[in-house]
Amino acid sequence: MGHMDKTAHGAFWAVRAHTERLCAHLTAEDQCIQSMPDASPAKWHRAHTTWFFEQFLLIPSLPGYKAFSPDFSYLFNSYYETVGARHPRFARGMITRPGVAEVTAYRAHVDDAMARLIEQGGDLSLVRLGLQHEQQHQELLMTDMLHGMAQNPLNPAMIPGWTAPAHATDADTWIDCPGGIHAIGHSGGGFAFDNEGPVHDVLLRPYRLQNHLVRNAAWQEFIADGAYRSPTLWMSEGWAAVQTEGWQAPLHWRRESGGWAEFGPGGLAALDPQAPVRHISWYEADAFARWAGARLPTEFEWEAASHAPGLLERDDHVWQWTGSAYLPYPGFRAVEGAIGEYNGKFMINQMVLRGGSMATPPGHTRPSYRNFFHPDRRWQFTGLRLAMDL
Amino acid sequence: MGHMDKTAHGAFWAVRAHTERLCAHLTAEDQCIQSMPDASPAKWHRAHTTWFFEQFLLIPSLPGYKAFSPDFSYLFNSYYETVGARHPRFARGMITRPGVAEVTAYRAHVDDAMARLIEQGGDLSLVRLGLQHEQQHQELLMTDMLHGMAQNPLNPAMIPGWTAPAHATDADTWIDCPGGIHAIGHSGGGFAFDNEGPVHDVLLRPYRLQNHLVRNAAWQEFIADGAYRSPTLWMSEGWAAVQTEGWQAPLHWRRESGGWAEFGPGGLAALDPQAPVRHISWYEADAFARWAGARLPTEFEWEAASHAPGLLERDDHVWQWTGSAYLPYPGFRAVEGAIGEYNGKFMINQMVLRGGSMATPPGHTRPSYRNFFHPDRRWQFTGLRLAMDL
Amino acid sequence: MGHMDKTAHGAFWAVRAHTERLCAHLTAEDQCIQSMPDASPAKWHRAHTTWFFEQFLLIPSLPGYKAFSPDFSYLFNSYYETVGARHPRFARGMITRPGVAEVTAYRAHVDDAMARLIEQGGDLSLVRLGLQHEQQHQELLMTDMLHGMAQNPLNPAMIPGWTAPAHATDADTWIDCPGGIHAIGHSGGGFAFDNEGPVHDVLLRPYRLQNHLVRNAAWQEFIADGAYRSPTLWMSEGWAAVQTEGWQAPLHWRRESGGWAEFGPGGLAALDPQAPVRHISWYEADAFARWAGARLPTEFEWEAASHAPGLLERDDHVWQWTGSAYLPYPGFRAVEGAIGEYNGKFMINQMVLRGGSMATPPGHTRPSYRNFFHPDRRWQFTGLRLAMDL
Amino acid sequence: MGHMDKTAHGAFWAVRAHTERLCAHLTAEDQCIQSMPDASPAKWHRAHTTWFFEQFLLIPSLPGYKAFSPDFSYLFNSYYETVGARHPRFARGMITRPGVAEVTAYRAHVDDAMARLIEQGGDLSLVRLGLQHEQQHQELLMTDMLHGMAQNPLNPAMIPGWTAPAHATDADTWIDCPGGIHAIGHSGGGFAFDNEGPVHDVLLRPYRLQNHLVRNAAWQEFIADGAYRSPTLWMSEGWAAVQTEGWQAPLHWRRESGGWAEFGPGGLAALDPQAPVRHISWYEADAFARWAGARLPTEFEWEAASHAPGLLERDDHVWQWTGSAYLPYPGFRAVEGAIGEYNGKFMINQMVLRGGSMATPPGHTRPSYRNFFHPDRRWQFTGLRLAMDL
Repeated sequence: MGHMDKTAHGAFWAVRAHTERLCAHLTAEDQCIQSMPDASPAKWHRAHTTWFFEQFLLIPSLPGYKAFSPDFSYLFNSYYETVGARHPRFARGMITRPGVAEVTAYRAHVDDAMARLIEQGGDLSLVRLGLQHEQQHQELLMTDMLHGMAQNPLNPAMIPGWTAPAHATDADTWIDCPGGIHAIGHSGGGFAFDNEGPVHDVLLRPYRLQNHLVRNAAWQEFIADGAYRSPTLWMSEGWAAVQTEGWQAPLHWRRESGGWAEFGPGGLAALDPQAPVRHISWYEADAFARWAGARLPTEFEWEAASHAPGLLERDDHVWQWTGSAYLPYPGFRAVEGAIGEYNGKFMINQMVLRGGSMATPPGHTRPSYRNFFHPDRRWQFTGLRLAMDL
Repeated sequence: MGHMDKTAHGAFWAVRAHTERLCAHLTAEDQCIQSMPDASPAKWHRAHTTWFFEQFLLIPSLPGYKAFSPDFSYLFNSYYETVGARHPRFARGMITRPGVAEVTAYRAHVDDAMARLIEQGGDLSLVRLGLQHEQQHQELLMTDMLHGMAQNPLNPAMIPGWTAPAHATDADTWIDCPGGIHAIGHSGGGFAFDNEGPVHDVLLRPYRLQNHLVRNAAWQEFIADGAYRSPTLWMSEGWAAVQTEGWQAPLHWRRESGGWAEFGPGGLAALDPQAPVRHISWYEADAFARWAGARLPTEFEWEAASHAPGLLERDDHVWQWTGSAYLPYPGFRAVEGAIGEYNGKFMINQMVLRGGSMATPPGHTRPSYRNFFHPDRRWQFTGLRLAMDL
Repeated sequence: MGHMDKTAHGAFWAVRAHTERLCAHLTAEDQCIQSMPDASPAKWHRAHTTWFFEQFLLIPSLPGYKAFSPDFSYLFNSYYETVGARHPRFARGMITRPGVAEVTAYRAHVDDAMARLIEQGGDLSLVRLGLQHEQQHQELLMTDMLHGMAQNPLNPAMIPGWTAPAHATDADTWIDCPGGIHAIGHSGGGFAFDNEGPVHDVLLRPYRLQNHLVRNAAWQEFIADGAYRSPTLWMSEGWAAVQTEGWQAPLHWRRESGGWAEFGPGGLAALDPQAPVRHISWYEADAFARWAGARLPTEFEWEAASHAPGLLERDDHVWQWTGSAYLPYPGFRAVEGAIGEYNGKFMINQMVLRGGSMATPPGHTRPSYRNFFHPDRRWQFTGLRLAMDL
Repeated sequence: MGHMDKTAHGAFWAVRAHTERLCAHLTAEDQCIQSMPDASPAKWHRAHTTWFFEQFLLIPSLPGYKAFSPDFSYLFNSYYETVGARHPRFARGMITRPGVAEVTAYRAHVDDAMARLIEQGGDLSLVRLGLQHEQQHQELLMTDMLHGMAQNPLNPAMIPGWTAPAHATDADTWIDCPGGIHAIGHSGGGFAFDNEGPVHDVLLRPYRLQNHLVRNAAWQEFIADGAYRSPTLWMSEGWAAVQTEGWQAPLHWRRESGGWAEFGPGGLAALDPQAPVRHISWYEADAFARWAGARLPTEFEWEAASHAPGLLERDDHVWQWTGSAYLPYPGFRAVEGAIGEYNGKFMINQMVLRGGSMATPPGHTRPSYRNFFHPDRRWQFTGLRLAMDL
């Protein structure tokens, strides 16, 4: 095998196989629909992550590589203006052909070529980027598909038998965290996205964090206290969203005769009062914190604490909304070329989430990882951890 | 077989088989999408026509009949308020499950039961209504699916090898038609929809009709003459539609380097200049007639003429827009119950089309048949025949 | 005065003065607003009707006439494509300048010139058209301004002291009307719009009409019977409008603690149960007729009856929705030039109303007069008269 | 005058008179319109600022005070949920009555009562808040009215004879600014809004700022270089706004035959190439900085520099977009009651602007002042100052 990287080989196959496993129970029709403009079809995720390898690795770097189809760059480019024209995002659900079988063949074609490229010693940093990219899409595939399934009055399960991870049973408590200057951002070895750097110092004031995430039981109190009808608890635009969207509970909660149920990847199930709340918008997280006499942590407080105190449910339940807007770190500069479009052009109008979720592939996230969504979005596995000034 | 109606048996199987034949080349994904609110998924058409038999014949009339699924009435009711709640129309494309295979099983289940019902001497008038209903959906299935395929940049063929019927080669000429009192509406035996009656007398002035439909070549002249940029040729709301929708040619026309092409059930093909123009709105038909110094015939002129002169391309190419609004005939009264919702409640804001099209199942239409669409709709096989005062 | 027409002189001043009288109680601000895209500011009506005389009479026909302002054709052209570019309709309420005083001066400037033109023997048929046109705008000015005032929570009166005309006190009864061939359309002397002709014969079946219009008391029964919650009473698109718009009563009805009140030109007043219902859409008129076991008359039935039986409240209370779509009469042909845009280009998607209303200037209407609005519009003084088959 | 505060008296009359002066050339109609949902009528600003004094000072604190009208709290409350129901924001332009004269009387009534309250030693901190509030509305009145005038094809001048302030003529240069810990936020005496505190330390890296604002000449180069057609210069949502809104230049620029003109409070005038660019969105500011190889300063960099180096055009030309999202400072807590709704509930989805503009009342702003708007808004006097890392 020469200078080839066996680890890269293994990682490549593991990530690619995980995507397929997520779709094991999905029918061809399931994989085709787009249930809202923010979501993409499962088939599209499978093809787009494959196109990423083809576009950025195989075509430029594998001698003699023949693209699977001349049409796929148009169909499966997501948002890379540098790469050329592309199918409009809102119309992804209209692409019935290529079908599931052809997408499966596309994946096999690219996988074979990637195996050759890795053997020949391709640019492993780009391979790694492609795998991280595919892992991000694995989480989106799951949340998008969950949203699609939720449109069906029959409540089909995306992954029959799926259950949420167990939550910590320690007592709730506040953890005191020191102020001072803290280094923020990714350092040391291992992969990180460009938006996690450069490392820079941030000055913090002393603060407190909850060891646990906010649970469904607390959220039910919040509802029972009339929070969804109390404008003064909300940001002005949050209150407008409550009224326009008719929010009365987190997304995917259903009021059944026997009490609240929650629609999840395993189908409809009774709400677990001790589980961390999920599928809430930033507006709801912010209003809850105000109602609770607390606030959201900044992303810097979260990151500093994640290195020091023992934060329970840190990255395996839900992404945690922070009080920080998604902005470039001091000295941030997007890399040249199409790959530079990866993160930088989204640094406006979104709020940072930290941690990771039950839908995040294991090993994908880290303390410096910055996830981001608009403050009104609820279809991700999102929750919150409370903070206070000390 | 006792008093059973062998003809009904034969007709039932023939119509049901034709629906399946239309879908022979469609994948599961093709059958699932809804490309605009007006359209429905092919799978939905297959299930809804089946539900019609189950709802209006089997459940009330076949002793011991067991509904295939308790959910299907909610999913596959189209617009019958009397029958109960139903899945919202715009969200039909989100129903990935039941899948194609289950819909096929549903059809078989109902077909078996219908065979028993017909043997036992069920209400043949309702069977016939169900078959006529299914034939209407066969045409919609074709136009809806064509619209769906048209969203795909790969131009897939809905029915590979499909070609339009040959058009008449007689010379173009005007046919003089007499005025006077004419009986309008369905009379005699055979099936007709409630909106074709009651028969009533209408007083006409002498008029002329073209023996042929308007052809693509004439439409190209209309375009070349700047008609799509000339407000005075159009109804005020037609001109607004031209601008809002950006119309520059009929729907499904594509400007290719070698000239105009047309997307049809067989895929993309060069435009045939002698073929009748299709996929035009009433606004375009009306503007064309004005441009040509003529007008659209009324539905009464059309019906009177269709009994007398030799109208070429009468019902086998495109539906022909008329100058008549879709309104009840004098003395019309909707029947009691859910079936009464069939036609009457749509008698506003739509214009009448007469004839039939290449997508209409053979034998489905007749001279008294009234088709109707909003004046801005273009996804049906619609064209026009010119008229003039004498 | 030579060959000058003293009657024309008198009519001119009378109509022009009536417009000003309608605005006597309006402030500058009142005259400026546009409360919905369908409505126009009072000031705009005053200027547009003046522009009509300037554009179609003074500029082409009065030697040495100097237009008041070069900008006014752009600002006050309504929809004449032939005349040139114009200010977009939806933005008429943004034109704060010219102000009310300048519009008053514009009217005086044009009135003076028109006096000269009439003396010199101008084209009296165009003068008459201009006056009829202004009378139509007098009614629109009143309904538009009423709609504008209705947006104000203080309920200001457009015309303090205004009261509705007294209604007939005869007993309700059905009037039998004969079938047969009837001449429809304007004939004889006097002014008529192009859409009232050509005269033509129509064949009717025997029918009945109510001597009275439908009253508020009957409408309250309709409401009490749950009609606004009963889908089967409605056209499909009417029912959609009920839900989208949240209709629960006619426009301008207000549920007060002491019962229903109605907002009118005189402000808010208790609802008179015996007065004809007003401010209803065609959808509501149609649903009411169905609920009452009757139907709307066609415009031909209405016109034939208006010549023969004694129809009470024929043209002095509310316009009466008919079951007829607004379409050209047989042989109708728009005149050449800009004036030809007057009526013809609106002959689609609208329903005919017959009669006249309390907002119609006296003498403006006649039995052949065809008013027309979209079936969902409610801001005119619109009501209904029931019909039945005999 | 006893213990009365002469300064408060003087400040009160000065601020109140300035509002009236801004409207000196506005007609009643000008003051009534609302040209977009973000804007409010001039009359509304005059009444709302008056209501603020009535609601928060006179009613609670002046014994025997009689409210001018019971309706005005409903009409002129802006967004105080705590105070009660209010007229919807988008419909402010429909309030023709009370008219301009009545609003003038309202102002006089409240001014008289305020004079008594100030004499009696009312809560001067609330008086000061009311005046600061009115000064903010003076700027909005000017930008809203400018937007309204810009809808009129006649280009009327809001303030005839108005000219922009002269700009600095020093050479363009970079100013080096040190890093380290800086105290941010309002300290010392004088008024400040709650969002300017608490004072807190921020750690900065060394940076550079331009001594001048970006000028129109540079913006013309930006346009000429195709920036409005180059997606890679823009944030993803900025590029979407460029396409949706059709942006090709700053708001209020007009392409005339002789070159660019700019519509301003004085009417239409030739664009001054040396003047600071104004009426740009954050998206445009950000794209310009990227195109120029620079970036926007953070609000902290701006504030630190404004205390030290000589920033030209610091607060008298245009508000300067920063790279900072509008978020609460560490330890921020809204005050109790309605006044607490002043700033806090808007701390999401907006970007901070620093400095001040030619429309800001003199003395209103200070280095710690935080203005904020959504990144797509352009109707304020907004521009930018470039920054770079050192």
